[in-house]
Amino acid sequence: MSVLIVGSTALDSIKTPKSENPRLLGGSASHAAVAASFFSPVKLIGVVGEDFPQKYIQLYQRHKINLSGLQIMPGKTFHWSGEYEANMNNRRTLLTELGVFETFTPTLPKSHQDAQFVLLANIAPGLQHHVLDQMRRPKFVMADTMDLWLNIAMADLLKLIKRIDGFVLNDSEAHQLTREDNLFVALKKIHKLGPKYVIIKKGSHGSILSGPKGYFICPAYPLHSVIDPTGAGDSFVGGMMGYLATAGGSIDGNIRRAMIYGSVTASFCCEGFGLTQTAKTSRADIDRRVKELEKLTRF
Amino acid sequence: MSVLIVGSTALDSIKTPKSENPRLLGGSASHAAVAASFFSPVKLIGVVGEDFPQKYIQLYQRHKINLSGLQIMPGKTFHWSGEYEANMNNRRTLLTELGVFETFTPTLPKSHQDAQFVLLANIAPGLQHHVLDQMRRPKFVMADTMDLWLNIAMADLLKLIKRIDGFVLNDSEAHQLTREDNLFVALKKIHKLGPKYVIIKKGSHGSILSGPKGYFICPAYPLHSVIDPTGAGDSFVGGMMGYLATAGGSIDGNIRRAMIYGSVTASFCCEGFGLTQTAKTSRADIDRRVKELEKLTRF
Repeated sequence: MSVLIVGSTALDSIKTPKSENPRLLGGSASHAAVAASFFSPVKLIGVVGEDFPQKYIQLYQRHKINLSGLQIMPGKTFHWSGEYEANMNNRRTLLTELGVFETFTPTLPKSHQDAQFVLLANIAPGLQHHVLDQMRRPKFVMADTMDLWLNIAMADLLKLIKRIDGFVLNDSEAHQLTREDNLFVALKKIHKLGPKYVIIKKGSHGSILSGPKGYFICPAYPLHSVIDPTGAGDSFVGGMMGYLATAGGSIDGNIRRAMIYGSVTASFCCEGFGLTQTAKTSRADIDRRVKELEKLTRF
Repeated sequence: MSVLIVGSTALDSIKTPKSENPRLLGGSASHAAVAASFFSPVKLIGVVGEDFPQKYIQLYQRHKINLSGLQIMPGKTFHWSGEYEANMNNRRTLLTELGVFETFTPTLPKSHQDAQFVLLANIAPGLQHHVLDQMRRPKFVMADTMDLWLNIAMADLLKLIKRIDGFVLNDSEAHQLTREDNLFVALKKIHKLGPKYVIIKKGSHGSILSGPKGYFICPAYPLHSVIDPTGAGDSFVGGMMGYLATAGGSIDGNIRRAMIYGSVTASFCCEGFGLTQTAKTSRADIDRRVKELEKLTRF
């Protein structure tokens, strides 16, 4: 089955102490879509400007991503620019140019409205609602978010959380949302806001799922070199949804393995700037690392 | 087989935003010895003053800890006092009174010199050397340390690391020792200093082993309430060494499971002030949580 993904489609300029990388393909939906494409067909919903490089369209196409929901509008593509410190953990935003995103209204082609697996990747909760409003009867809807929406669109976000099956956020966002230091107490509080499945991402420390079958402690793949973590969280949730969409059977029966696949897909993302490394990765590469993770966690 | 443990035997006064707990039983050797005692007989090497409460001697005895290497000296027991912030992660030392520790020279009873499993729990590296000098042919020697010794006794510590089989430290100490942000690169650098097994502790994020059979990603048991993390690292390494000492077979064949047992023993430590909760724990309680951890990590 295919997975429908809405989110940002952007150009990212990423600076580190060692290099500058202008106008890479980025955005939550780009990372999530390419990650999901290793496992299932993907329908992308997003908007880009007339300046969007043709080579990035081709990159989507090489991953067989359905682009009939990608609008190309007069104006400029959303452009984010950020700078990482030497440890690659702390980053600051240098510039955000919304461009065509400012007036974006995601409109779903008819063929997309029956999608069973829906990923509302990180984007304004209002737009996530708008996509969900157009869906018929999705089987499983997962949403991601970021600190910005907790700061400026909390009411919209709380309404959204009630409507979805799964919610993904990172540890500092979980703290911001619940005011809880203990992640397991935070998970319980977030369940009370609606979603049956809650996943807290902890970067290189992996992630934790809380669901009807209890907790799952999901490891991160051990990386000896992190080139650029931008988009790793999006790759994680994209890979996970892609795996879920094709696994068959119950969500409960598949979600742990789906997280492992997401985690491994995210590890490739970290090994290059933007989508550089992910785009070079094959399903066989992913399967190899999943097998390795099995060995690294067995006791 | 029994495990010989040297380290600090102390009184800890622990303040949190909610309570004050004066003169609890503490010290690296106390925590490690009680943790190890769930799995194997323990021989404790340490020193206390004449003010050391009899009830703490009885606590050791209830755990069948051999005290023939515990010196009782004229003067005061080592006393540490610290204060935790509300999140229970950040703590500051309020007071350190060395007392009888100032002139402590660990002397091993003859019966102790043949011990096969030796844990050099956190204490000045000079004292760890002194204990090792008195051992005949230990099968497996593991050492723990703290930032203080990296700051004031680095040369001694580096000499020690060459003499041991396994070295345990936390993530910030690993960074301090190697100047590496990436834990997996740090592990490789620490191997080059000598030890075959290196374990980096990451608190609530678990720990990572690097050894001849590669990495092991060891989870922490999910706790909904952390009352006092003091001694959790000592409990972890104590439980691990206790398990190794009785497991039989090769270190490589047992060390992953030993870490899991250490991790679970440490989880009980965090659930009460000082050793309060650990002392109420049974081997059956530990086995139950180990089974739970198996379920929480399976995929």
